[in-house]
Amino acid sequence: MSTKQDEELAQERLIDLAAEFYDQFAAGEVPQMNIPTRTKSNIVFDEDSKVWVYGDRTSTRSANSVRGARKLLKASYAIEFLVNQLEEDRSSTLRELYYLSESWDNEEAQFQSQDESNQLIEDLEIVSQVTREDFHMRPEESGATLMGPLELREQTRRGERDIHCQEDVGEGGYQIPNNPDTIEFLDHDVDFVLCVETGGMRDRLVENGFDDEYNCLVVHLKGQPARATRRITKRLHDELDLPVVVFTDGDPWSYRIYGSVAYGSIKSAHLSEYLATPEARFVGIQPEDIVEYDLPTDPLADSDINALESELEDPRFETDYWTEQIELQLDIEKKAEQQALAARGLDFVTETYLPERLSAMGVL
Amino acid sequence: MSTKQDEELAQERLIDLAAEFYDQFAAGEVPQMNIPTRTKSNIVFDEDSKVWVYGDRTSTRSANSVRGARKLLKASYAIEFLVNQLEEDRSSTLRELYYLSESWDNEEAQFQSQDESNQLIEDLEIVSQVTREDFHMRPEESGATLMGPLELREQTRRGERDIHCQEDVGEGGYQIPNNPDTIEFLDHDVDFVLCVETGGMRDRLVENGFDDEYNCLVVHLKGQPARATRRITKRLHDELDLPVVVFTDGDPWSYRIYGSVAYGSIKSAHLSEYLATPEARFVGIQPEDIVEYDLPTDPLADSDINALESELEDPRFETDYWTEQIELQLDIEKKAEQQALAARGLDFVTETYLPERLSAMGVL
Repeated sequence: MSTKQDEELAQERLIDLAAEFYDQFAAGEVPQMNIPTRTKSNIVFDEDSKVWVYGDRTSTRSANSVRGARKLLKASYAIEFLVNQLEEDRSSTLRELYYLSESWDNEEAQFQSQDESNQLIEDLEIVSQVTREDFHMRPEESGATLMGPLELREQTRRGERDIHCQEDVGEGGYQIPNNPDTIEFLDHDVDFVLCVETGGMRDRLVENGFDDEYNCLVVHLKGQPARATRRITKRLHDELDLPVVVFTDGDPWSYRIYGSVAYGSIKSAHLSEYLATPEARFVGIQPEDIVEYDLPTDPLADSDINALESELEDPRFETDYWTEQIELQLDIEKKAEQQALAARGLDFVTETYLPERLSAMGVL
Repeated sequence: MSTKQDEELAQERLIDLAAEFYDQFAAGEVPQMNIPTRTKSNIVFDEDSKVWVYGDRTSTRSANSVRGARKLLKASYAIEFLVNQLEEDRSSTLRELYYLSESWDNEEAQFQSQDESNQLIEDLEIVSQVTREDFHMRPEESGATLMGPLELREQTRRGERDIHCQEDVGEGGYQIPNNPDTIEFLDHDVDFVLCVETGGMRDRLVENGFDDEYNCLVVHLKGQPARATRRITKRLHDELDLPVVVFTDGDPWSYRIYGSVAYGSIKSAHLSEYLATPEARFVGIQPEDIVEYDLPTDPLADSDINALESELEDPRFETDYWTEQIELQLDIEKKAEQQALAARGLDFVTETYLPERLSAMGVL
């Protein structure tokens, strides 16, 4: 839950950061900020948390150049904006922050591009160890939904809302808010969480009543999942002690979707402990399934082959399971979408494929 | 409302179509199907309905070639599938249909690409004058949401759900189902419908309580709106007699978003009467606003200029208003996003811009 304490902590940390610049000035030092280097070669596996985090290499943002000084100036202005935003219990999007900077009195502090303001917010997250959500910075889109036997309470600006994610929602399901830490889990009959990549498959599972029959909570990932979707998945696992399985297309881009749910992403490795669910397991479509169920396929494109080869070297996929599956796929040179299961009929996925795979995995 | 009658009508029309092929065969004729030509030059303004519809030019799908015969064979198989689907009260996605065809006993009837099956469904919609939704063909994604003082009843497979789009939903709002004709409007305090392009702006309006203060129903378009979003917008206008205004970025691509809400699209001109809301009006960002409010802008790219020039020749934009605005934009060579209003502060859009514009338009 995002509580008043979290927000106070965020405020405190931001002010501390600004105070640090001040102290450096006061001590006659050149102000600077150290940040972990955000590249693939600087992510390491953390044995305690079982997720990938940044390693020891850092980059320094120092005021010893005009460019560096300007960065710290922008950071100071952004900190002031964020502290006021928290003070007033407001929120804003990354895009709004970029435009807002046009109203700042010092032109040197204004952002030249949204990449610049986005990166600054990420830097502040890393340095302050507070998430963007606790700064009240909203993403552009969340959009994913839940459907299943879960009752929750969402703290909205208009008061509390108690919502059962089957009984109180339409067929579209419950819309996950931008900051899912405003949600409290009240009650549930969920046996496992099933994260689904595509809308077509999500709707298939709901139409076939899979959530109802198997007491499963269907989380729609909507392609590469938003932070809010990954966060609520993690909370469902950690707080309700539920197994999490991920169901995507059978191609390298979809394995990355699984990877971002399970291990976190390189870009947000500083948030792995907040967003990643290392216990999440992959249901399929496995390259093995393409062979076993004789699914309709497409040939691998060159970009698919390159992506698979790069996954073989990605520390997140360095397991016997993934090595075997990826090598098999490079061997058969084929990929398949999850909706390709429809070639066996519209009920094949819910009556045969998922029950077989989930039993094999020990989830059912 | 999608009723049993609509579905029976869909079934009947599909069977009639197959019967027509049969009769043509029986009469010793070469079976064929006539379909309006779907190009920009064959859309005309219908004075009665005030939307753009197909003109008189038609294309013929005839079995007088192997290619043509194969098309009609595929149509027959698809018709059989759809009739059974309606019989069993099931539904499926366009993508599933493509894969499903792999299980059909006649290999010649199987689709070679999803473009082919998608186009066939559109052909069937046009010829049978029944919408895809009444065939129970679902889109891949709907995803848009409503927020505002509207109480509705959604007919789901699991029974009726009564939902108030402010009191019974979280901050994410009410998720529009794939087929919004399953919705019945129960009660409302809505004064006007505000369709918003981006998620960031939608969240801004909700955070600022704009829906509450102005009794407005915020419809998130999510970029180019899905059919479900356009359909519910039209129903809100027609059934509840509500003014509809559209709020997008100020660039040629966003004017097309407005156009697809108001006038329908070339691709789905056969559905204009079902999907388009010709009374919908454009709030902004107008090129005029860029000048008047001195908004942060980006220069027009070559592709923007081409798109604006092509809009000047698009019959849907042949009004004094649009000609003036588009020519102004070509003149100032600038575009602006709706979130650029944040350069004047986070409340500028709800406290100044929208109230001013909506008053000028006579909506407030």
